[in-house]
Amino acid sequence: MDLNRLRRQIDFLVEIDRLKSIVRQTLLVDGSRQEDSAEHSWHLAVFAMVLAEHSRAPVNLFKVLKMVLIHDLVEIDAGDTYCYDAEANTSRAKREKRGADRIFGLLPRDQAVEFRSLWEEFESMQTPDAIFAASLDRLQPLLNNFRSGGLSWQKHGVRKEQVYNRNRHMEEGSQVLWEFASEIIEDAAAKGWIGE
Amino acid sequence: MDLNRLRRQIDFLVEIDRLKSIVRQTLLVDGSRQEDSAEHSWHLAVFAMVLAEHSRAPVNLFKVLKMVLIHDLVEIDAGDTYCYDAEANTSRAKREKRGADRIFGLLPRDQAVEFRSLWEEFESMQTPDAIFAASLDRLQPLLNNFRSGGLSWQKHGVRKEQVYNRNRHMEEGSQVLWEFASEIIEDAAAKGWIGE
Repeated sequence: MDLNRLRRQIDFLVEIDRLKSIVRQTLLVDGSRQEDSAEHSWHLAVFAMVLAEHSRAPVNLFKVLKMVLIHDLVEIDAGDTYCYDAEANTSRAKREKRGADRIFGLLPRDQAVEFRSLWEEFESMQTPDAIFAASLDRLQPLLNNFRSGGLSWQKHGVRKEQVYNRNRHMEEGSQVLWEFASEIIEDAAAKGWIGE
Repeated sequence: MDLNRLRRQIDFLVEIDRLKSIVRQTLLVDGSRQEDSAEHSWHLAVFAMVLAEHSRAPVNLFKVLKMVLIHDLVEIDAGDTYCYDAEANTSRAKREKRGADRIFGLLPRDQAVEFRSLWEEFESMQTPDAIFAASLDRLQPLLNNFRSGGLSWQKHGVRKEQVYNRNRHMEEGSQVLWEFASEIIEDAAAKGWIGE
């Protein structure tokens, strides 16, 4: 047994505990508090297990699960960037790349390469697996925001057009889920939770 | 598109948001608060991705991931049962079985059967996949308890023999991880975090 290899693996697993302290703008469905990125990643993974059949192109669910489980680890260094914060989003890519260098670099070399490659595939949104994973990454907060009474949208004064622009590419991943999401957006607008 | 099917899937995904409010005895590594079962499930899944090579028997990582992602959903109804609470553990199986009936029953029939079967395989700890998943389910809180300074053990007055009894079957899943865990337990005892 290569003890140095095991030590690197354990150090990585201890370090990523910090994802539990990265707070997102999305509320829990019961509205009691904001969720964190570890909870979000877990929820996304179960979304993938349940909704994979709705992907427009066939997906490799195993790959999608691995991708969504690690897609936000870079936030440990880069923080969560609120999707409607234009300024923060201009520096997001650079901050996240530095985070990826450090965090995946904690792993043994072969695993660092594997995890980095999963993350880059997710970020590039080019493959059917990544496109579907990105659709879920939009749908989960949309559903949580809606079911928790739209408080997060109201707090930030988000407008309908912004929500459409943010979420429209969900259609590429799943026609069915995009139709469902569009109904949610229209319903949220009708309720006055997002501005026209 | 079967809209009733999609509605059941969405209702399930909304319901399981409640796992984020099931608080465990384990602290975050930084000691700031107790973790919840959604965070724990996410952490376990990444443990599986990183440590699968240490399983004694070859495992199907895809299956292990699905298993650990859903293994605690029954706690939404049954609550988290602290592993060193003997009284609560006598009623645990019955409470969790009722939870499984209701929660997996929210899904469309074929998915309810699939999820229930994954959960039963995990609980039975008979297959290599379930044995390895159970080992990780022991290792993750052990590591978090140790790295957060043993506060959870001290709070509950846990003794070394109890920790060994609770974790010993990890050896069945992985010799390497059990040796690592044993070192942690001895170290925690030497530090006085668990009683002799």
